[in-house]
Amino acid sequence: MTEAFDVVDLIRRKRDGGALSTEEIDWLVSRYTSGYVGNDQMAAMAMAIFIRGMERREIHDLTSAMIASGERMDFSSLSKATTDKHSTGGVGDKITLPLAPLVASFGVAVPQLSGRGLGHTGGTLDKLESIPGWRANLTNDEMMRQLEDVGAVICAAGSGLAPADKKLYALRDITGTVEAIPLIASSIMSKKIAEGTGALVLDVKYGSGSFMGALERSRELARTMVDLGTDAGVNVSALLTNMDAPLGLTIGNANEVRESVEVLAGGGPADVVELTVALAREMLELAGVHDADVESHLAGGQAMDTWRGFVIAQGGDPDAPLPTPAESLEVRAEADGVVTRQDAYSFGVAAWRLGAGRARAQDPVVHAAGIDLAVKPGDTVRRGDLLWTLHANDAAKFERALESLEGAVDFAPVGTEVELPPLVAERVSAN
Amino acid sequence: MTEAFDVVDLIRRKRDGGALSTEEIDWLVSRYTSGYVGNDQMAAMAMAIFIRGMERREIHDLTSAMIASGERMDFSSLSKATTDKHSTGGVGDKITLPLAPLVASFGVAVPQLSGRGLGHTGGTLDKLESIPGWRANLTNDEMMRQLEDVGAVICAAGSGLAPADKKLYALRDITGTVEAIPLIASSIMSKKIAEGTGALVLDVKYGSGSFMGALERSRELARTMVDLGTDAGVNVSALLTNMDAPLGLTIGNANEVRESVEVLAGGGPADVVELTVALAREMLELAGVHDADVESHLAGGQAMDTWRGFVIAQGGDPDAPLPTPAESLEVRAEADGVVTRQDAYSFGVAAWRLGAGRARAQDPVVHAAGIDLAVKPGDTVRRGDLLWTLHANDAAKFERALESLEGAVDFAPVGTEVELPPLVAERVSAN
Repeated sequence: MTEAFDVVDLIRRKRDGGALSTEEIDWLVSRYTSGYVGNDQMAAMAMAIFIRGMERREIHDLTSAMIASGERMDFSSLSKATTDKHSTGGVGDKITLPLAPLVASFGVAVPQLSGRGLGHTGGTLDKLESIPGWRANLTNDEMMRQLEDVGAVICAAGSGLAPADKKLYALRDITGTVEAIPLIASSIMSKKIAEGTGALVLDVKYGSGSFMGALERSRELARTMVDLGTDAGVNVSALLTNMDAPLGLTIGNANEVRESVEVLAGGGPADVVELTVALAREMLELAGVHDADVESHLAGGQAMDTWRGFVIAQGGDPDAPLPTPAESLEVRAEADGVVTRQDAYSFGVAAWRLGAGRARAQDPVVHAAGIDLAVKPGDTVRRGDLLWTLHANDAAKFERALESLEGAVDFAPVGTEVELPPLVAERVSAN
Repeated sequence: MTEAFDVVDLIRRKRDGGALSTEEIDWLVSRYTSGYVGNDQMAAMAMAIFIRGMERREIHDLTSAMIASGERMDFSSLSKATTDKHSTGGVGDKITLPLAPLVASFGVAVPQLSGRGLGHTGGTLDKLESIPGWRANLTNDEMMRQLEDVGAVICAAGSGLAPADKKLYALRDITGTVEAIPLIASSIMSKKIAEGTGALVLDVKYGSGSFMGALERSRELARTMVDLGTDAGVNVSALLTNMDAPLGLTIGNANEVRESVEVLAGGGPADVVELTVALAREMLELAGVHDADVESHLAGGQAMDTWRGFVIAQGGDPDAPLPTPAESLEVRAEADGVVTRQDAYSFGVAAWRLGAGRARAQDPVVHAAGIDLAVKPGDTVRRGDLLWTLHANDAAKFERALESLEGAVDFAPVGTEVELPPLVAERVSAN
């Protein structure tokens, strides 16, 4: 068969700052999926896209081509509206755990297809697997039944959705081409559109612990994704949320489940509650449930009931004790002061080095490993006060984790006023 | 083993415009050679280098690392000085064929390790293989003996020289990362320095049929390579030579051998003779043979005698008839005019489509395929005059070859003065 295009021509065009046509992008993605275009060629293309960028039309075409590379799910047979959330990844971000059951407790379906952690950001499935018996893999039938019965599902995405994206994502990870807006936006939105949700809220992080960094870049990513979703007929909006410091007081797996359960019981750290409530309102609004009294379902136990139903439906025991660490190390304040900065990225790397995350996709995670924070930015500490506790299965892990925390926290004299950035900085909605 | 560096960190640094240290470049090249760094990762790095560039020190380090990836040859046991030439590749460029025996006829050794053609530029070994019996592969012992006895050797480079470069060159070819000065310069010079020649003349092409295009870029490439060679203790200079139009009157394989033999017999097209003589003088000067009367060895038969000795030493029959084409097509002038432009690149592509070149490294070439030119820029033609003759083993090849010649030639009214660029535009010498 004579091929319609020459991949080297396409790479050279993008390398020199040109645009690819719709037909060229379709061809590229389908031939990459089939293996005719090699990983080496796609890596060169990804780097060229990274540095040269893509026009809005090209990003749209790339997203469509990745959706077309696989199957699409269909929730139209459900008796409920579907609504979903996607976060661009943060440190200590366990929000999905309280959020999915909270939203589902209002009678909507939350089909949360999640991933595993890689690098300094944690993975929702890794966290939930701390719960004895809980399993991430469901058949389509199990998923549909659970959405109808319990409302909340958090499970691994099947391999049939956007296979081109899966292949490209793994390639980007090892070729230094992760943080490009055209590639991030098309990757996220191709999966979410193929998943078939009716409504979608994007939690786009900005700040030191996020992929994007500056607020401006996060806004550009959010706008790009909201446009892609709107074009595909999804009710979509985005919140730009701060990720300078870790969310909540736990970074890891089992400890994040513990904190999530506190939120579901009506307690938990203020920032986790604030973000959970804000995202729940967005998800419900987009799904047609207006002015829901979200806090009442946390205080009243409805969210907790749904959580328990969700854990049990996926084989877990909500009352079983969670794994505990073999080794713990307390770090205490060397002087009095006010915490002015607690760098999310550094804490993410530290937790990763403790064993909470993985360096390669096939590595296991240590469920009890991680960090418990005793203080947050704005808190005043006295000399000798507990700052944080590191957990690992092996005390040898502490040294490199502590290295990555060097310079990660700043203190000011006691009494200094600390101005904290708003947790939810902006909302980006469909035009 | 814990690795000293993380390849993704290095790719990201170059992607963002930073420089790599000497240790990082050594590590990268050695791990790429061993396979620890994958082709996908190196493709992303090559694209980042292509777009972001490299400092002079980085290019030097890259060259050194590629030399260190393999063995080095040693000609110090020869009784003669060694001198070599490298051309950056052109259309109709058969210069090596008359040049190597001409220079060797002055009592110096010319160890010409050559390659095969890929894309629109021809390969010296492909051309010579038109000669019945001639073989490109020699053992090291055969090569040393022939250098001592005949003086001229043109053979395939062994796989032991700069294996990192071989691997990277093949990768660049399929990933749109060929035309970057740091990558071209380090690729050429790592092979030539590892080869161990004492003197080296670089024939750096500029113009439409060259990889570099503009004279400025060719000058920059020449300066970079001359500096690399000088740093490594090689006597090196470069000539910047024009490649707007094909060299000589033949493009192909067997027809280029025929034209080369004409030059060796004291005839041949003026431009081929001019460039052969200019390069021979440079090669001889750098090897310590000053003010050689180069033309006399063409007119007097010494160059031809060395050519015949060279062909016979490598198993060929210098008197055997060369392959002839199964199909030929004459193209004639549709009107009177003066040829003002004859685009080398288009003619190279046309010859390639006729079968003279290969699309993939493993493809065979058709030795009798190619183009004979009846006119050159500056020539006046009358309606009906022969312009060029296409040769192929299959008449079906003519259509696509003619397509690539559309717009490749310009004519002006008869009597128009045509100013031709100088064939040798500049000389670049060691500082």
